[in-house]
Amino acid sequence: MTAYEKLVARFKKKSALSGASAILQWDSAVMMPDGGADARAEQLATLGVMSHELTTDSEVSDLLDTAEANVASLDAWQSANLREMRHGWRHANAVDAELVEALSHATSKCEMIWRTAREEDDFQQLMPSLQEVVNLSKQMAAVKAEAFNISPYDALLDQFEPSCTSETIDVLFDDLGDFLPSFLEEVIERQGAGPSFQMPEGPFPINAQKNLGQDFMKALTFDFSRGRLDTSHHPFTGGIPDDVRLTTRYEDSDFTQSLMGTLHETGHALYEQNLPAKWRGQPVGDARGMALHESQSLFVEMQLSRSPEFLSFALPKIRGAFSGEGDSWTYDNFKRLYHNVERGFIRVDADEVTYPLHVILRYRLEVALLSGDLAIPDLPGAWNDGMQELLGVRPPNNKLGCLQDIHWPGGAIGYFPTYTMGALAAAQFYKKAMTAIPDVAQQIEAGDFSNLIKWLSKNVHELGSLKSTDEVLETATGAKLGTEAFKEHLKKRYL
Amino acid sequence: MTAYEKLVARFKKKSALSGASAILQWDSAVMMPDGGADARAEQLATLGVMSHELTTDSEVSDLLDTAEANVASLDAWQSANLREMRHGWRHANAVDAELVEALSHATSKCEMIWRTAREEDDFQQLMPSLQEVVNLSKQMAAVKAEAFNISPYDALLDQFEPSCTSETIDVLFDDLGDFLPSFLEEVIERQGAGPSFQMPEGPFPINAQKNLGQDFMKALTFDFSRGRLDTSHHPFTGGIPDDVRLTTRYEDSDFTQSLMGTLHETGHALYEQNLPAKWRGQPVGDARGMALHESQSLFVEMQLSRSPEFLSFALPKIRGAFSGEGDSWTYDNFKRLYHNVERGFIRVDADEVTYPLHVILRYRLEVALLSGDLAIPDLPGAWNDGMQELLGVRPPNNKLGCLQDIHWPGGAIGYFPTYTMGALAAAQFYKKAMTAIPDVAQQIEAGDFSNLIKWLSKNVHELGSLKSTDEVLETATGAKLGTEAFKEHLKKRYL
Repeated sequence: MTAYEKLVARFKKKSALSGASAILQWDSAVMMPDGGADARAEQLATLGVMSHELTTDSEVSDLLDTAEANVASLDAWQSANLREMRHGWRHANAVDAELVEALSHATSKCEMIWRTAREEDDFQQLMPSLQEVVNLSKQMAAVKAEAFNISPYDALLDQFEPSCTSETIDVLFDDLGDFLPSFLEEVIERQGAGPSFQMPEGPFPINAQKNLGQDFMKALTFDFSRGRLDTSHHPFTGGIPDDVRLTTRYEDSDFTQSLMGTLHETGHALYEQNLPAKWRGQPVGDARGMALHESQSLFVEMQLSRSPEFLSFALPKIRGAFSGEGDSWTYDNFKRLYHNVERGFIRVDADEVTYPLHVILRYRLEVALLSGDLAIPDLPGAWNDGMQELLGVRPPNNKLGCLQDIHWPGGAIGYFPTYTMGALAAAQFYKKAMTAIPDVAQQIEAGDFSNLIKWLSKNVHELGSLKSTDEVLETATGAKLGTEAFKEHLKKRYL
Repeated sequence: MTAYEKLVARFKKKSALSGASAILQWDSAVMMPDGGADARAEQLATLGVMSHELTTDSEVSDLLDTAEANVASLDAWQSANLREMRHGWRHANAVDAELVEALSHATSKCEMIWRTAREEDDFQQLMPSLQEVVNLSKQMAAVKAEAFNISPYDALLDQFEPSCTSETIDVLFDDLGDFLPSFLEEVIERQGAGPSFQMPEGPFPINAQKNLGQDFMKALTFDFSRGRLDTSHHPFTGGIPDDVRLTTRYEDSDFTQSLMGTLHETGHALYEQNLPAKWRGQPVGDARGMALHESQSLFVEMQLSRSPEFLSFALPKIRGAFSGEGDSWTYDNFKRLYHNVERGFIRVDADEVTYPLHVILRYRLEVALLSGDLAIPDLPGAWNDGMQELLGVRPPNNKLGCLQDIHWPGGAIGYFPTYTMGALAAAQFYKKAMTAIPDVAQQIEAGDFSNLIKWLSKNVHELGSLKSTDEVLETATGAKLGTEAFKEHLKKRYL
């Protein structure tokens, strides 16, 4: 076996372990009785350590060196695979095991405390453990920054969106930060001049909601022979490409959230299901990064599912599912409902106009936390000032402010920007798809999404990690990641 | 860390891996879409290899030697734990990796072919792959026999029922083989003289069946915070002690099978849930062996659930669940139904009188297959002759004969005897429990099983693998495994 072939065998093993973990994580959220929690934590920790050891084993370094010296013998996919192996190796080997373990314990502890602190609106309670997570994250960022010769923040960002830099993000976010506040003002004003939406009145049986969600998933070409839809407290897409585990949550008083949640996760799920079958279990066969992943969920949820064409297709089905009749079930009311814009406090409930402002706030704050420009005790004040500046509202408490997200307690610094990068990419893809596919609007109205998803699959899903995010965007849409298509989309939909 | 402590850490890791596999196996049978099968096989194989390597690693041998030299420093549980570690080590290290892998591939292939061969009643089709499995099993038995200095058959038996020998089984089975055929004759005659049972007529909604099963499980002290009941094609008890995954299957035309199936699995599940909490993840904390495991399921299904006291408690609940009224819902009819004895062809459908005869046949045949006294092509004839001799009926085809069980295609030679050893042990335990617990019959009639299960737990479950099967039986019932209590039970119930 060549060095490259040995690496392939090793990463296949690693993928089997992470696939096992993915199913067990799904099980924890969907199936596991409470009493199983301790043993499950032990299982996942053991699998995590063994997977880590497969990359940090001293043999791997030599194998990578040898394979890279012979890269000329590899084809484009193989050499991209080797590049991705090296990327994973660099992250695993930059940091020593003690720091990894310390951070893992600190985030587990901080996440636990966060649940209570948020519930009780008590930032003081969170402070010591959040301080610990931020300190350890700083250490990790510093070590990786030195090893990769990039900035500390970029070293964290690279874990979620490889090769992305804060320089790039600053340009995008400064532009959006300039544009959105006044645009939001205008949208709210215009919205206030028209009639407000009416919420359809339930109850909406959970089974009917689930069947409707599954019908839309099937229409969107989700393959139920390689995936499932279940229920969990927090919706997510887990599992592996040939066994995608998608979840949503239901309330019988409101079907609109569960429906859009299911459509959002379906976007993630289609990316996973359509990853290149030939490269299963290899790094190049994985999804490119979090920005493109989020672009796929937002493509389906925001671009497609709230479009006039989709509403024309979907509304009769929605009405049918719940025997809906009357004023709140008209096309115009649904459009108002699904295009409603609000200056809210909570990111996960935000519409597509205000969502980027929530993200920009978090990005600026996490950069400042990491550099030391912002101290933990000053976080609540800085958060509220930022909300005032960007969204024009001031949270009345920390529960509706800096205690709302699990990301920082969980150590995920560098993750937030990918949400908005995904929204920008989704707009670019959608705009291009609308002109590249003949008759696509009519197809959507007729509930035939096959050509649209094929286009996405060919231009994004099937590429796995072969190309960079910007290369994928340039090839598909003619431009790198930018704000133009997104702003154009917002103006068209909301003004 | 002492050598013993190092072993404890290593076996804890091994247990986490096997626990992960157990949940993934449950998922394969209950949740997984078909498309996930290949990746799941890869996950389970990877976990299996890694778990195997934890025991075959050269360090383990030295650690075991050192710990055994210092066994005086260990308490009774610790030294039993060390003994069980050595037992696992001996099995893992006796056979080289190639043979293990060859057998694993041969059984996977043979099981696949068996499904079709059984369906098509085509023994010829199965022959080559079954020959391969038997050949490799012979090799494995020979290697282990030499390493352990016991007979080849006993070396296989030792995997399922440690330290058990065919000498012991021969005594028990010869006795049953003498007693049962004439006893069966008598029972059938007596049964024929009375009225025959009437099958209650459905349909019986699946949900009502499931709720009823869960109610009985709760009454039997199954802890739903540490386990679940789900549906699968073949009922089984899987998972881990603090997260027991029990399954059953339902037919809406007949609730009696699913109900008894659920009660059977509940017996297995209670054993797992009540294993010593202090020894989770260590070999001494595991169930003793398959004979005691089966004794727990048969204790609940055969001894308890078909007793007059249990029927008095259960019948009103069963009637209530299905709004049952009329002749087929009387106490007498249910007793006839649940005590019906038949000379059938299929083991899994057999009653408790004929079941041991099915097992004796298989035991005698697998001993002969392993020794070479019986050749694969002669199996169908030997099977049918044995059925004629033991049960007085001759299967009209191999589907109802030697093709019915997956055990041999799956390489499980040495497993069958544990079913009947379990039935014998169950009778011993039940007899003793009825005299040891004051007012137990009244408690059962009142649906209060707490003292009965506590007795079982104290005498069996909580001992884990501390003692041998015979030691457990002697301490609890005053006698080693024997046939007396079982025969007495059969005479009392059926004559």
